[in-house]
This record gives sequence, C-alpha cells and structure tokens, in this order.
Amino acid sequence: MAAHAIDELKATGTGFTVERATVPGVKDLPVACKRLIEERGCDIVIALGMPGAEPIDKMCAHEASQGLIHVQLMTNRHIVEVFVHMDEAGDDRGLALLAERRAREHAVNAYDLLFRPGRLAKMAGTGQRQGFADAGSIDASRQGTGGAAAAHGGGGEGSGDAGAGGGGDTGGH
Amino acid sequence: MAAHAIDELKATGTGFTVERATVPGVKDLPVACKRLIEERGCDIVIALGMPGAEPIDKMCAHEASQGLIHVQLMTNRHIVEVFVHMDEAGDDRGLALLAERRAREHAVNAYDLLFRPGRLAKMAGTGQRQGFADAGSIDASRQGTGGAAAAHGGGGEGSGDAGAGGGGDTGGH
Amino acid sequence: MAAHAIDELKATGTGFTVERATVPGVKDLPVACKRLIEERGCDIVIALGMPGAEPIDKMCAHEASQGLIHVQLMTNRHIVEVFVHMDEAGDDRGLALLAERRAREHAVNAYDLLFRPGRLAKMAGTGQRQGFADAGSIDASRQGTGGAAAAHGGGGEGSGDAGAGGGGDTGGH
Amino acid sequence: MAAHAIDELKATGTGFTVERATVPGVKDLPVACKRLIEERGCDIVIALGMPGAEPIDKMCAHEASQGLIHVQLMTNRHIVEVFVHMDEAGDDRGLALLAERRAREHAVNAYDLLFRPGRLAKMAGTGQRQGFADAGSIDASRQGTGGAAAAHGGGGEGSGDAGAGGGGDTGGH
Amino acid sequence: MAAHAIDELKATGTGFTVERATVPGVKDLPVACKRLIEERGCDIVIALGMPGAEPIDKMCAHEASQGLIHVQLMTNRHIVEVFVHMDEAGDDRGLALLAERRAREHAVNAYDLLFRPGRLAKMAGTGQRQGFADAGSIDASRQGTGGAAAAHGGGGEGSGDAGAGGGGDTGGH
Repeated sequence: MAAHAIDELKATGTGFTVERATVPGVKDLPVACKRLIEERGCDIVIALGMPGAEPIDKMCAHEASQGLIHVQLMTNRHIVEVFVHMDEAGDDRGLALLAERRAREHAVNAYDLLFRPGRLAKMAGTGQRQGFADAGSIDASRQGTGGAAAAHGGGGEGSGDAGAGGGGDTGGH
Repeated sequence: MAAHAIDELKATGTGFTVERATVPGVKDLPVACKRLIEERGCDIVIALGMPGAEPIDKMCAHEASQGLIHVQLMTNRHIVEVFVHMDEAGDDRGLALLAERRAREHAVNAYDLLFRPGRLAKMAGTGQRQGFADAGSIDASRQGTGGAAAAHGGGGEGSGDAGAGGGGDTGGH
Repeated sequence: MAAHAIDELKATGTGFTVERATVPGVKDLPVACKRLIEERGCDIVIALGMPGAEPIDKMCAHEASQGLIHVQLMTNRHIVEVFVHMDEAGDDRGLALLAERRAREHAVNAYDLLFRPGRLAKMAGTGQRQGFADAGSIDASRQGTGGAAAAHGGGGEGSGDAGAGGGGDTGGH
Repeated sequence: MAAHAIDELKATGTGFTVERATVPGVKDLPVACKRLIEERGCDIVIALGMPGAEPIDKMCAHEASQGLIHVQLMTNRHIVEVFVHMDEAGDDRGLALLAERRAREHAVNAYDLLFRPGRLAKMAGTGQRQGFADAGSIDASRQGTGGAAAAHGGGGEGSGDAGAGGGGDTGGH
Repeated sequence: MAAHAIDELKATGTGFTVERATVPGVKDLPVACKRLIEERGCDIVIALGMPGAEPIDKMCAHEASQGLIHVQLMTNRHIVEVFVHMDEAGDDRGLALLAERRAREHAVNAYDLLFRPGRLAKMAGTGQRQGFADAGSIDASRQGTGGAAAAHGGGGEGSGDAGAGGGGDTGGH
C-alpha cells in the first residue's frame, strides 16, 4: 500500500520529501508515526495497514486507531489512517484493488491537508468514498451534509470558531 | 452541515468570527479541532460529521468522539459534536433534514455555551432533542431530571462545587 | 437532578458553596467539570446526566464516563458520576423517582468524600445501592466484600499502601 | 475484601505500613489510588471492588480498569486490581470465598512486586489462578508460557531490554 | 514465553543486554514496561502474556494493549506485544507450540526494529504471520498490501513525511 501512496503523492505535487518506516503490525504504527513526526520532522503521516478479518484483528485495529488519534493530539500533526480490512472485499484481487485505490485517494487527502486545504472544503458533501465508487451527495440537500459522508470512517468537517468570546477572553481574536 | 451551523450562528448573535476547517473523515476531526483552538484562537468548536451505517463506521465515530473529548480536556474549551449517523433516518431526504436541524440546534448550543450559559440552565429538564421533535420533560418530575434527557447523546448537568473544603485546601474559595 | 443533589447537600452539612454549570449533553460534561475544578476552584464535582436508551446513547455515556475519569486523574479531584439511563425504570414516574433518589444518595457520597471519609469506610460491605433498595451485605461474609457491591457501577475500595518500600525509596514514608 | 488483603499483607511480611481509602464505586477508584500514591506516598496500591453482573456494571469495571492503568503510567507505580464480578460465583457464599481468596492472593502479589520480584519470576508458567484452584502449567511446554496464564485477566511477563542500542543511543546502557 | 524470546534474541544477534521483569497479569504489563524503559534504560520491550479465553479475559487483554500503546507514546520506544489467547489453539500442546513460535518470531521483529529496520521493509507485503504458517502475499498485488497483512493484529506500515511543508514550517526539512 505504501508504494501506491508514495507513487500517488509524487504524481500529485512537489515540494516535499518522503520518509518511510515499516513495523510488524498495526499496533506498532502509533509510536512509529510519532517518531516520524518528532524525530524525522514529518509534517503529516499516512499510516497504512491491513487488519485481518477476525474479531481480535478488529480490536487491534481499534486500539491502533485510538493510538493514532492520540499521537495527532500530542503532535498537532495530521495522521491519515489508511486501513483496509481483509473482509472488505470478496477475494484477494478485489482486496488488492481496494487497497491501491484507497491508498492513492488518501495520499491525495494527505497532500490536500498540507498544500490544498481549500480543495477539501470544496469536496465536502460530494460523498467521496475512498476506495469505492463515489456515493454522490444527498439529493435533498442543497449543500453538503458532512462532505465525506460515505467515506470509510465517515465524513467530517470541523467548523471553526463559533465566537471570539468577549471582554478579556484571551482565546478570542 | 457546516453551512447550516454557520448560518444559524449568524442568525443567533454577533460579536464573533467563524473559522472553518474541512477534513477527509471524522477521525481527522480531533486534531483539526485542537489546531483551530490552539493555532487559530477559537474559543469553541462545532465538530460536524456524518458517520456511515456499518459497524466499522460506528467504531470510527466512537474513536473520533473519544478524541474530541480528549481535545476538550487538553484545551479547556468546549467542542460541540454534531454527528448524524446515516442510519438515523429512513431516506436521504430525512437524513438531510435531520442533519440541518441538528446542526442548527447545536449551533445555538455552542452560542449559548459561550454567550448565554444561563439559557442552557433554564432549558435543563425540558427534554430538548437536537434534530427531532422535543420529547418534553418527565411529567412525574417537577424539576428537570437531567435536562437534555432525550438529546442525542443524553442530557447532562455538571453540578458544581459540593464544598469549598476546609482548612488549607487551596482549591477552596 | 441537580436540584435534588443541591437540596440534599444543603440538608447534609454546611461549610461549602455550590457552583453550577449546565451543558447540552453528557459528552460535554468532562470539560465542564474540569473547568469547574480549575477555573472555579471546586474541590469535588457531581456530574449528573440521563443518557437515552439506544445503543448510541450507551456509547455516549461510556465516552463521557471515560472523560470524567480522565479529568479526575488530571486534577486529583473526585467527580461523582450520577447517570440515570432512561431504560433503568419502566415508566417516567419510576425514572424520576430513581433519578431523585440516586442524585440525593450520591450527593451524600460527595459530601462524605470531602468531609466524612470515615463514614464511607464504615459503609463498605453493607451493600448500599444508589437509587434502589439496599441489597444488604453478603451473608456468608463477616466483613464487607467491596462495600458498594450492589451500587450502580459496582463497589470499590482502594486499599492503601502495601508497603513503604525500603532503602532509598523516595515514595516510602 | 480490603480486610482480607490487609490481613494477608501483615501475615506475609513486615517493613511497610498500610494506608486505606474507601470510595462509593469502582469508577471512583482511579483518582483515589492516584492520591494514595501522590498525596500519601504509597509505593503500590491494591484496588479492590466488586462490580455487579449487569452489562452496565461490566462497562463501569472496564472504565475503572482503564483508569487504573492510566494512573500507573502517570505515577510509575503498580496498582494491583482485585475485582470480583458478582456473576463469578453461583451464590453469595461462593462469591465471598472467591473474594477472600482473590484478595489474599493478590495481596501476596503486591508484596512480591515490592519486596520479592524474583518470586514472581519463579511462578511464571505455573498457572497460578487468583481465587480459584491453580490451573497448572501447560504440559507440552517445558517452560512457562506466560506464567499466570490462567490468572483472572491473563498472565504476563514483561521481558526486558532486547538491545542496548548502538552508537549514541542515550537509552542504551 | 519469555525464555523462548530471549533464546531467539541471543540466536539472532549480539550487542545488547536483556533485562527481565515478571508481573502477575497482563494488566500489570504497561507500567512494568514503562519502568523497564525509564528506570532500566531499555530501548525496546517485548511484552509477553497469555490471556484467558473468557470475555473478561479478552477485555483485560484489550485494556493491557491500550496501556502498552500509551506507554510507547509516552516514551517513544517500541513495545512488541506478544499475546497468545488461550482459545487460539485446540489443545495445550498446540497452544505451547504457538506461544513458542510467536515469541520467537516477535523477538526477531524486536531485533529488526532496533538493528535491521530495512529487513522489515523488505518483508512488507509477504504476509508473515507470527506463530502460524505464512499466508503469502496477495497474488493480484505486485507489491505489498500492508506487509504483515496476515499477522496477528494485522499489518502496518507507517509511510513517512508526505510533505516538508512550505514557508516557515518548522517541522519541514
């Protein structure tokens, strides 16, 4: 998956270098990502993994995801998680194609987060679905309803400051 | 959803500016919200997303919610989570209407948390239900029993200081 | 629920003041409690909420509880969680009565944690059950077997220092 | 349970003092244990509780356990969790006997962690089972396979430094 | 299991020393591993345990895994988790063989993480499966699809820096 992600990154833009680290399993990803950020100066990380189909594997993926979110909060850097669960496709061929598509699409997301944040805002609500055919937007809705609503992991927008606060609020601006 | 939230904020009051950030999925929301608070000076954040209907999507929403709570504890700022699960309505139209209503009602909650905390206290126990018809209060109860008891995510009141403590308790007052 | 808790606190003792905060939902409780402790000098907090009966509501309550425990570890202050799940009683009347009883009994627990710790130790093993008839102690057991064994959330005792350690152990005494 | 643990500690060795704290429920244990360590200088804590048999009680125990692990990581002190779930025995008498046995056996574990770490290493793989008859070791295995493999909560060994690292690795030795 | 891991480490390479600690159960592993890193200067830790087959044991293993990931993020050191669940094999003999194989294979992973990171990268996508026959790579895929795709806990690669960022980005390089 990493090869596809790196290939897509290089096809998408320039002005960056790529560091790479490999770990035995998805539960080893959080600290590896933290070290890429803290020890190798990475501005964003793409964490790729392919958890198995058993309940224990789902739990490992959950623990890894919690750790990846924790790392982001410790470093204020984005980590784009690209997990492909082995039961997401019917056969190995489908799984490989899904893995490639998802890795490529998330590589573009990572690029956009760093260099083209405006593009993500424009895509919000159009139902982009990493690794699958796009789901399209919700017809009844004139504007997006969460953007990546059909994305694996759901869509999300972090709408900003609802108020600069008043008086001496140091957080205001 | 963000468009509705921002529209409602502007219809509710003034004295604030709005920052906006968009991310690929709900698991990218926690760090995006933290950066809005720490790097763009936001006093409160509304985190909007529309998780899918599959078990994996529910897990992603859970991980995102844990992260959003963690960010609040790291920053001492409120983050109002507005998630609409794709299986909360029977069709796209219902989903879009639910998403708009919930986004608008939570936008008012965010405004109240910053500018009208007293209004939230008055609403406690009246069974406000974001995005659905209000459930009303519990008849047998003369006063509220948790306020937003029927709210998505349950109702809650943080009753304050049960004691200033004695003697040299530095926490007292 | 907060009204009952505050009423019970005032009937139980004196020497404290009460601060109060209201939030839209239980997931907003953790940061609200942290701010009551850090910004308004509270020595203990009673967190009241009434989560809904759906699986999503149970998950929200779980996330809120994790956050409340995290706040306690960040502040070294107790937060007494008083959640009443909407499916804990058969009808609204029963729910309201349960909410009132639980709020009152946990208000006394909060008071005891601050002012009468010895009273909690005496109650250990007598099977106090917040909001329900007491379950009594386990007959075969001469002494308590966890105290609030039948309490909602289970009973617990934190038995202290199993050893002051030897030699240069700075933690010893 | 605490009484049995303390009795066993005093029968096992000397050179320590015992502090004790009681809380209303298991979710109040984490901060109570942290305060025993930070405010009363405890070197180790035994956290005893008896969660109920309902799903909500299992969730509370899970949240308490997560908190207890978090406290250990914040303080670098061991906390020996001794939970007896009310559905672990068929009747009250069996439950009381189980609680006493488990409390006593974990009290010895706590003592060993502080004063006799070598003894724990010797027990590894012999299948000690707190509160139940020992399960014995796995016959096909000449050496232990995790030690407390049959212990409530599973067995574990933290095998140490797999390498002192090379060059300027400050972590090496 | 620790004996096999240590034996394999010594057969794999030199230039390191091994520290060892034993704890009563898997939930005691996180703080034990943190102390091995912080107090005994370990550069990497192999955490071995054999959780039971009951739901409560699965939950304990989950809590332990979350704690082990937390320790890694607190210390920036890898902890290789080697858990063998008692229901992973049909009988004690199979369990013992699985435990030995998994301990040995993860010991090599630990060695590689410290001394041969390039070897892990080469193995990515070949479907190494700790403790079982290897699953092989996904035929339809010319390059790896996550590497340890079939590994217990799933495979993972942390692909590095997707961009050095522009302008004054201090994280860039």
